[in-house]
Amino acid sequence: MIQRIVLTGAALFLFFLAGNVMGETSLVMNIKSAGIVVVGTLLTGFLAFPVTTFKGALENLLILFRQTGQDHRPLIEQMEALALIRRKHGDKVLESEGAKIEHPFLRKGMELVVDRYDRYEIRNIMEREFEMYFSRKDSEVGLLTTLTRVAPAFGFVGTLIGLINVLGNMGDPAKIGQGMAIALLTTFYGLLLSNFVFQPLARKLSESIKAEVLLLNIIMDATMDISEQTNSRAVSHRLYSLLGEKKSNNRGDEKPQTSPGGLSIRPLLQRFIPGK
Amino acid sequence: MIQRIVLTGAALFLFFLAGNVMGETSLVMNIKSAGIVVVGTLLTGFLAFPVTTFKGALENLLILFRQTGQDHRPLIEQMEALALIRRKHGDKVLESEGAKIEHPFLRKGMELVVDRYDRYEIRNIMEREFEMYFSRKDSEVGLLTTLTRVAPAFGFVGTLIGLINVLGNMGDPAKIGQGMAIALLTTFYGLLLSNFVFQPLARKLSESIKAEVLLLNIIMDATMDISEQTNSRAVSHRLYSLLGEKKSNNRGDEKPQTSPGGLSIRPLLQRFIPGK
Amino acid sequence: MIQRIVLTGAALFLFFLAGNVMGETSLVMNIKSAGIVVVGTLLTGFLAFPVTTFKGALENLLILFRQTGQDHRPLIEQMEALALIRRKHGDKVLESEGAKIEHPFLRKGMELVVDRYDRYEIRNIMEREFEMYFSRKDSEVGLLTTLTRVAPAFGFVGTLIGLINVLGNMGDPAKIGQGMAIALLTTFYGLLLSNFVFQPLARKLSESIKAEVLLLNIIMDATMDISEQTNSRAVSHRLYSLLGEKKSNNRGDEKPQTSPGGLSIRPLLQRFIPGK
Amino acid sequence: MIQRIVLTGAALFLFFLAGNVMGETSLVMNIKSAGIVVVGTLLTGFLAFPVTTFKGALENLLILFRQTGQDHRPLIEQMEALALIRRKHGDKVLESEGAKIEHPFLRKGMELVVDRYDRYEIRNIMEREFEMYFSRKDSEVGLLTTLTRVAPAFGFVGTLIGLINVLGNMGDPAKIGQGMAIALLTTFYGLLLSNFVFQPLARKLSESIKAEVLLLNIIMDATMDISEQTNSRAVSHRLYSLLGEKKSNNRGDEKPQTSPGGLSIRPLLQRFIPGK
Amino acid sequence: MIQRIVLTGAALFLFFLAGNVMGETSLVMNIKSAGIVVVGTLLTGFLAFPVTTFKGALENLLILFRQTGQDHRPLIEQMEALALIRRKHGDKVLESEGAKIEHPFLRKGMELVVDRYDRYEIRNIMEREFEMYFSRKDSEVGLLTTLTRVAPAFGFVGTLIGLINVLGNMGDPAKIGQGMAIALLTTFYGLLLSNFVFQPLARKLSESIKAEVLLLNIIMDATMDISEQTNSRAVSHRLYSLLGEKKSNNRGDEKPQTSPGGLSIRPLLQRFIPGK
Repeated sequence: MIQRIVLTGAALFLFFLAGNVMGETSLVMNIKSAGIVVVGTLLTGFLAFPVTTFKGALENLLILFRQTGQDHRPLIEQMEALALIRRKHGDKVLESEGAKIEHPFLRKGMELVVDRYDRYEIRNIMEREFEMYFSRKDSEVGLLTTLTRVAPAFGFVGTLIGLINVLGNMGDPAKIGQGMAIALLTTFYGLLLSNFVFQPLARKLSESIKAEVLLLNIIMDATMDISEQTNSRAVSHRLYSLLGEKKSNNRGDEKPQTSPGGLSIRPLLQRFIPGK
Repeated sequence: MIQRIVLTGAALFLFFLAGNVMGETSLVMNIKSAGIVVVGTLLTGFLAFPVTTFKGALENLLILFRQTGQDHRPLIEQMEALALIRRKHGDKVLESEGAKIEHPFLRKGMELVVDRYDRYEIRNIMEREFEMYFSRKDSEVGLLTTLTRVAPAFGFVGTLIGLINVLGNMGDPAKIGQGMAIALLTTFYGLLLSNFVFQPLARKLSESIKAEVLLLNIIMDATMDISEQTNSRAVSHRLYSLLGEKKSNNRGDEKPQTSPGGLSIRPLLQRFIPGK
Repeated sequence: MIQRIVLTGAALFLFFLAGNVMGETSLVMNIKSAGIVVVGTLLTGFLAFPVTTFKGALENLLILFRQTGQDHRPLIEQMEALALIRRKHGDKVLESEGAKIEHPFLRKGMELVVDRYDRYEIRNIMEREFEMYFSRKDSEVGLLTTLTRVAPAFGFVGTLIGLINVLGNMGDPAKIGQGMAIALLTTFYGLLLSNFVFQPLARKLSESIKAEVLLLNIIMDATMDISEQTNSRAVSHRLYSLLGEKKSNNRGDEKPQTSPGGLSIRPLLQRFIPGK
Repeated sequence: MIQRIVLTGAALFLFFLAGNVMGETSLVMNIKSAGIVVVGTLLTGFLAFPVTTFKGALENLLILFRQTGQDHRPLIEQMEALALIRRKHGDKVLESEGAKIEHPFLRKGMELVVDRYDRYEIRNIMEREFEMYFSRKDSEVGLLTTLTRVAPAFGFVGTLIGLINVLGNMGDPAKIGQGMAIALLTTFYGLLLSNFVFQPLARKLSESIKAEVLLLNIIMDATMDISEQTNSRAVSHRLYSLLGEKKSNNRGDEKPQTSPGGLSIRPLLQRFIPGK
Repeated sequence: MIQRIVLTGAALFLFFLAGNVMGETSLVMNIKSAGIVVVGTLLTGFLAFPVTTFKGALENLLILFRQTGQDHRPLIEQMEALALIRRKHGDKVLESEGAKIEHPFLRKGMELVVDRYDRYEIRNIMEREFEMYFSRKDSEVGLLTTLTRVAPAFGFVGTLIGLINVLGNMGDPAKIGQGMAIALLTTFYGLLLSNFVFQPLARKLSESIKAEVLLLNIIMDATMDISEQTNSRAVSHRLYSLLGEKKSNNRGDEKPQTSPGGLSIRPLLQRFIPGK
């Protein structure tokens, strides 16, 4: 909701700024100026990064802007339920339930538990996978940061082209205005593209990664605890502290608020959700 | 007190600078220029960060500017008292006293002690919670840093709009002055906003986080020591070294200067307090 | 394929930009301007870094742009096969098979296994070698970063030379244009060289290093596992998680899809390959 | 000595630069320009940091500029003497001698030894205290870095005020010169303040911290060794390697060159002293 | 050899650039401009760093530019020989041979071995000494980085002085050219000094430190191995992997290619040497 207001506001503000500029310059020149900046910036990005990094960044950003909010509570209840399932029903049931899990790293964790890896091996395998996962994410942020840095440079390159053309036709005052316009227009679009598009996108992506690091660590901790069947109080405590609240009256026993056999995912109070 | 003098001085200085500029430019143009910078900068912030990060940063800054000073001594005496309570009166009394603690992490720590988690588990649980807590704080500093970086860029964007308009109306000298004015005004407000507002706010917040990291580590150490009931000399020593002074004549026994049953919070000499 | 499209597009864009500038400036001046920037930048690089670093960076970049994609699957199947060979046929056969391995660090790892170093020694020796290897790679990225930073500075140095010459001949308007042209041309080429050439090259190289760090860690893990002949499930799991897929129906036994005696390197589905 | 020559040279250079500028601008304008920069920069500092950080930075810098050189040898001989005292005369004498020590962390260390904390506890307590100590120092460097970064921005703010006033009075050529002068004067003083004052001060402070980290680590090592009464050869070796020389003919026994009962602090050859 | 070509080329390029500028400006003005930048930059350096850091940086850079190449092979053979000496001839001979070693840290390491420190103590003592050594080196790089950053600022300060003088004498067109010339000349020399002198020097020094870190780690590893007389295969392997080659036909026994009693330092194939 707020997400949409912000995006609409940003679009209106962009139109307002462009409108202020349009008055004195033709639409064609505006498109040409913006084109030089966009093409140069994206080409630099494609020179430096493989296409898969572009795709990954785009997909992640679409998800980030589409999602109404991130509620980790269902996931946490799922982990509690899985701990109970293993203790009450054994690995057989855990395997069939685990295959239904949506979150890829939690599903993988349950596979490791069912395959009876010990605590140390689980940490080792999961950490290597996290490394690979976040290395990809990190490249995507790196791409957006590179675009942020390169866009104003191409804006200034366009400005220089315009200035050089102006200087070569000093005699014709009409062309001076036109040349200066395209010169400044490219810097204008370079700065906007960098600060109003790539900079917030890079930040948004890196913020979501920061949150994901915390979540995946929780999942790894829970997986190790489930594999050992000990310290179930600790895992419950840790899981609920993620939600910033105390599991009210049943601290010390892990009976989840779900039916023991299935994994209930209750829609929950939304006040905890960021970006909503 | 000094806090207030500084804020008043900053406001006066701001008016002095704006006054120097106002002489040659209309109020409307000043408001429009400042508006472009403020709206563009904040919109970028909202594009990059969820609303909760804005709220969190605002709340923390209000607390930082309102508080007359940070006195950790009551908290430290509280920890000493809690150690004594546990040894003399046992977990039952500790639980009821612990529920009265205001500081959320110390209260959580006492819950862990009462629930008889061992040293390793306490460290593990508290560290994950600190991580989550400081991850949120870190995002708030990141927001202010982003605003600091983006504000001058929007100032320059406004300047470019002004310049482009000037170049399109070279014939009319009256408009040149006006266009140049709004051009330079936006850069002026962009620089002021960045360096005089967001930069010190970002610094103030990150400094307070640095201090909080130290405090939370002390609380974690004390919680672990209380849970073990050993090394009480060490915890006392560590606690008092935080205050930069030696616990005068009763080193080696932890009798606190408080009535054994309750948690006294004495108002203390204020010379140690920063920002006062 | 996409690699080639991007390179062609970048070349065309460069010609388009240069063409826009050429109209008003002579080819000689363009060559002189680009020359000042290129010579100054490269000389700075040669002052700061040994020739071997230049060679290394060049070789690595040529490999990066020539390769159609990086498929780690043959390497991973090779490691699985090596684990099987050791268990089934012993160190004698492993030694002769190991000598045929192309990847230098995997070959070295197998030498260490045959020489019966223990897990700790293998980690110790391989980590020192990785350090030395990545220290060299790191210098190569440092070289490209230095060039990225220095190129615009030399562009501006050329601009200053032009401006000083213009200011010394204020009377001759013809020379003003010429002087200003060379002035702006060097900045133009400095910015292009920095942002369109060195910046993406530096990024491309550092991205490839990031991927290599992950791969070499996998190789080290596998070598340690092979040396111990235990945890073969873990190594298999780890190896296949690199490919982002589960080894379908034979989890838990390591029978590779290769003839047991030799090391088959099957051409594989290409969808996993970046930059393709 | 050299310290004084450098300071005198810096002052003369500053007067030379200011003199070059004074010729064309009035003293009042120079003071006003410098005033805007100094007031704006300091106000920003006071907004971001508590007054105690200012005081701390000032005190430390005064000490750094007053001290004729840092000779760690007396401190090291003191530590050697303390090790001998403990072994020969026991904790009673160590306590009374320890109370006379000037260096606060070494005195604290001896208290910990007398109180019979073990190696682990000593490390734990001292590291927390170092953390708190260096956190304060770090804030002081952060203050100076902030001032370094903000000063040129306020210089440019002043320049913008001047330019806006000039543009509003285009008709009056006399005022153009004056406006431009104050404009450029503030940038001039902003750059000088940043690069000639705050930048070297920030560096000097951070360098002194780096040296202090090493020294405090030596003190912590020595304290731990004294507490264990073993490895006295190692502590002696470590202590003398700090001085970059070998303890000539009595390696392996710790007889210090001091009278056993007291702590002699000999004035020593000064060639090792930095900043002299 | 290449070193000399690069230095000559850099000098010629510098003269070419200066020559391009000289045409329109007098030699006196060039010297004055360069003087302002050099004096201001160096004074800032002397304000921030002690004289010993200047001396150290200068000495290290002279060594770096004089040396024809860095061949670590003699050192590595020396370490192999020392391992053999200790095992075959005992500590007595090792002591007398060790005293002849030129490399200070290897000599110190052998002293520690002869003094019969254990593995842990050797690591502890040597790491502290490395810390102190690299802390000094780090300051030297910090000095050069500071000079790199400050030089363009003083260039711009000089430019401002020139501009202010021009603005104060608008009536006299002859003085405008002169003023602008000195203005731009200082920026010109500031940029050259920063990017063409201090930047590559800082990089060269930090690169040499990076290589030294690796070498000193090898020396520390070897010293620890020699002290234990075990794992001699590992030390030999590690040593030769530094050279990027396999010790051909005598893997598994450490017979060095030297006469057992002395330390042969053979001149070796030079292809491995950087900067040659």
